Amino acid sequence: MEIREVFARNLEAAGRAKGLSQEELAHRAGIDRTYISSLERSVYNASIDVVDHLATVLEIEASDLLKRRPEKK
Amino acid sequence: MEIREVFARNLEAAGRAKGLSQEELAHRAGIDRTYISSLERSVYNASIDVVDHLATVLEIEASDLLKRRPEKK
Repeated sequence: MEIREVFARNLEAAGRAKGLSQEELAHRAGIDRTYISSLERSVYNASIDVVDHLATVLEIEASDLLKRRPEKK
Repeated sequence: MEIREVFARNLEAAGRAKGLSQEELAHRAGIDRTYISSLERSVYNASIDVVDHLATVLEIEASDLLKRRPEKK
């Protein structure tokens, strides 16, 4: 799985785990909602500064957002 | 610690652990040595594609390169 997709899935899952909509996550992070949406569709090659900023808002570690999970069959 | 510095230290440590000079790492990754050097000095905001590519060359996970380690006092 490409790292962008790993990040996209982890970002979405972390937002869901916190009960945050894309809109609320975007608001808290001070980032446009369409940018979050694009990240969750693996459109952009996020920078580590953005990854770390989103992780802070989600109260997790930046490394958590890049962790490869076992793929479902 | 800023994420760029976390990445810089982990990148340097992982290269050292593999016995790779900056030059050899750059060669294997197909990236300019000056770019690697800049990443190790926290100059650039690396993208996750670059992080993942370097991790692959270093035979570790992308998430390992963003892991915050306990800071020395």
